[in-house]
Amino acid sequence: MENHFVAINYIQCEEAYKPRFEALFGSRAKAIDLMPGFKNMHVLKPKTDNDPFLIVSYWESEKHFKEWTNSPNFLEGHKRGFEDIRKAKEAGQNPPMTSTFKTYQVIAE
Amino acid sequence: MENHFVAINYIQCEEAYKPRFEALFGSRAKAIDLMPGFKNMHVLKPKTDNDPFLIVSYWESEKHFKEWTNSPNFLEGHKRGFEDIRKAKEAGQNPPMTSTFKTYQVIAE
Repeated sequence: MENHFVAINYIQCEEAYKPRFEALFGSRAKAIDLMPGFKNMHVLKPKTDNDPFLIVSYWESEKHFKEWTNSPNFLEGHKRGFEDIRKAKEAGQNPPMTSTFKTYQVIAE
Repeated sequence: MENHFVAINYIQCEEAYKPRFEALFGSRAKAIDLMPGFKNMHVLKPKTDNDPFLIVSYWESEKHFKEWTNSPNFLEGHKRGFEDIRKAKEAGQNPPMTSTFKTYQVIAE
């Protein structure tokens, strides 16, 4: 695992959207699982209410991760969440979730 | 892994201390590895300079994690880092690193 590449998506969810967010990941499309270089992922729910959820994914390299974000599978895997955001926008509402991406290298385990 | 417990220590390092921080983890005491309920851990180095390092540890339950933080092994495993902080304090300097702990539940993988 050492020197592997890690992407963390920090997702800030509206309180009312949290059950839907959890349900989406409970029945996720698994579109990511077939990507070359994908190792595994975890969805982390914070113990403290106002902290973001973390989507942590482990990859063989940054190149593999970028291929995923540019793939049709990426759109497929995020379809329901993107649709929820689009609908809120159309209705003139705040997005139900916002995300910040950060990337890392595994330097020890 | 689902429903497992995750602790993340977000470590903000002084720029000059980063090589030492990485060396400490490169030769870590492995005091944590023998704890009951410990699954695995990763040290994540941010790709962006001013972001914190992440120490991510996976546990069978929160109870197992708390037993680790209250164990003699915890002090042993952090001995060199705690000593660096103590010396800086004695010399009237800022601590070379500061940490924020957050805890999570794995809700999907």
